[in-house]
Amino acid sequence: MTDTVRIALDAMGGDHGPSVVAPGASIALSRKPDLKFLFVGDEAEIRPLLDADPALKAVSEILHTDVSVRMEDKPSVALRKGRYKSSMWLALDAMKSRKVDAAISAGNTGALMAMSRLCVRMTPGVERPAIAAIWPTLRGESIVLDVGATIGADAKQLVTFAVMGAAMARILFDIERPTVGLLNVGVEEIKGVEQVKEAARLLREDDFSTLDFRGFVEGDDLGKGTVDVVVTEGFSGNIALKTAEGTAKQIGEYLRSAISRTLLSKVGYVLAKHAFDTLKEKMDPRKVNGGVFLGLDGVVIKSHGGTDAEGFASAVELGYDMARYDLMEKIRQGLAHEQSTRVETDEEAPAALVGAAS
Amino acid sequence: MTDTVRIALDAMGGDHGPSVVAPGASIALSRKPDLKFLFVGDEAEIRPLLDADPALKAVSEILHTDVSVRMEDKPSVALRKGRYKSSMWLALDAMKSRKVDAAISAGNTGALMAMSRLCVRMTPGVERPAIAAIWPTLRGESIVLDVGATIGADAKQLVTFAVMGAAMARILFDIERPTVGLLNVGVEEIKGVEQVKEAARLLREDDFSTLDFRGFVEGDDLGKGTVDVVVTEGFSGNIALKTAEGTAKQIGEYLRSAISRTLLSKVGYVLAKHAFDTLKEKMDPRKVNGGVFLGLDGVVIKSHGGTDAEGFASAVELGYDMARYDLMEKIRQGLAHEQSTRVETDEEAPAALVGAAS
Repeated sequence: MTDTVRIALDAMGGDHGPSVVAPGASIALSRKPDLKFLFVGDEAEIRPLLDADPALKAVSEILHTDVSVRMEDKPSVALRKGRYKSSMWLALDAMKSRKVDAAISAGNTGALMAMSRLCVRMTPGVERPAIAAIWPTLRGESIVLDVGATIGADAKQLVTFAVMGAAMARILFDIERPTVGLLNVGVEEIKGVEQVKEAARLLREDDFSTLDFRGFVEGDDLGKGTVDVVVTEGFSGNIALKTAEGTAKQIGEYLRSAISRTLLSKVGYVLAKHAFDTLKEKMDPRKVNGGVFLGLDGVVIKSHGGTDAEGFASAVELGYDMARYDLMEKIRQGLAHEQSTRVETDEEAPAALVGAAS
Repeated sequence: MTDTVRIALDAMGGDHGPSVVAPGASIALSRKPDLKFLFVGDEAEIRPLLDADPALKAVSEILHTDVSVRMEDKPSVALRKGRYKSSMWLALDAMKSRKVDAAISAGNTGALMAMSRLCVRMTPGVERPAIAAIWPTLRGESIVLDVGATIGADAKQLVTFAVMGAAMARILFDIERPTVGLLNVGVEEIKGVEQVKEAARLLREDDFSTLDFRGFVEGDDLGKGTVDVVVTEGFSGNIALKTAEGTAKQIGEYLRSAISRTLLSKVGYVLAKHAFDTLKEKMDPRKVNGGVFLGLDGVVIKSHGGTDAEGFASAVELGYDMARYDLMEKIRQGLAHEQSTRVETDEEAPAALVGAAS
């Protein structure tokens, strides 16, 4: 890590391309002056945006390519058309070769995951990737993973997700030993699938120094913020995330239509406007924009495709934090503990062998 | 079905027992005057409540028992202590022997499901039960199942859930051919588990006369009300339900704390009170209280344990509708179609054999 944090931006990703990526980077730079950017994409589109923003231009380079992955491309199509040459691939490749410390794209999730796995590779010791989302809660924020990368993760993979989510929480929330819960169902008779129960057993037995396992949590614990990190496999995690987003929109819609129904309630709205602004800010999806791809050998951040400059800036700052406070090293520490405990307890290997075992 | 709809009430179920069950029944009776009740539980507690409510008393009988299942009992404990003699079991047993048309309990879900499966048995042709919830949406209401009975349902079971959910929707929404969607994840690369894809294939191929299959839906389609019936297995369904409930509470909490922060916003709140009341009503969980246990040979309704009389009345009216408009017959019609199509397409049996095959 140099004094600056260098970030590669897939300038062509997302619904709006450079017209959101450049001002987003500019907002992030105003808050984190030690950022440097590598814009990857069509120079003819990027150059004028940098020329109009001298501060941004001063810390940015452009890597030109004509090829970009479209939002509607399937991962297989994206790979065929964009491997080795698209703005998405080249942003990842710059990170792989350590020209930059993190890569950010608002392009399509499936393509970004497929390219990340091919280009960046997995962290040694991690079998499957996870996407971690930041979840607004009544206590503040939690991290929820996996929200869609690994359908039906097994017990061992869930434990690795816990370790990686805790590493991310250590950085984001500045806590030495974040609390971790496994998402489960509450009905007594059926309490959960086998792999979730087995993951709980493993997390309970290994006394992790990097996380504090608190057992099972349920769907309504997500909004409460009962734990810092909620771990689940990708199918239910993705459904939970989208259900929460949908419910928030639904209630916002109810509120809008209720308020606009009578003159009196419109007047009330104006008087209570500050309160509504507070609420709006609490529910602003731009503030928590950015999913972290965990399990890769580097920092890859996925921004929402439809976000604006403010939202893209959040994703950039998330990438900044993950690179600046060394997410990869924190994951390695967690995994090393996990592996050493495993070897000691399962096979009673002599302590001297533990280091060599990984 | 007689002229009246007879309902057995587990009077001891829920956090409040007869003190909520009796007034709840009374509210339901005021809206559905052709109801008759069998109160099952401690006569000493029930009798005074009926004496104080002559209209309710006139249509009610009491079946006395000292034994009741506690909210915190595990299903195995509940069965050991309560089989053949608890208020929960005897309410189910009254339905099994057709003394009543439906059974309702606010007791614990696991115990109620375990007792239902032992006492009432499964509908012929149904392998596993599902719990169907009514979900408030921007369009009105949808039915979501399974929200917690069958973890990891296979493709064939998901198809049966679709048929049963559609039967319930035909009654509740008065639609001949309700739209049905399978809950899935949206990320292209990974789009869903095998059994969900296979269930979609089966639902697409069999041209069901009792439902209109619309393909996959995602978590945010739940709140939108994209389809009348959303089908999923119990793990993700339970997580989706609790996540939505948790998100609604979380936003309500944000709103309350924002409103109470300044005098001006309090004044605004008073002026916009009508709007807030509308919102509150939209989000009132009592209105959609009651999960229907599907797949059993009879109508069993689970009320929330902590609900009040108004909420319990909703569960009673749900049971009334399911019995009055013959849920069981509508499920049989759907299953008969499913089985006949299966036999015809899979084994090319002569049409004359189709009836005999079930």
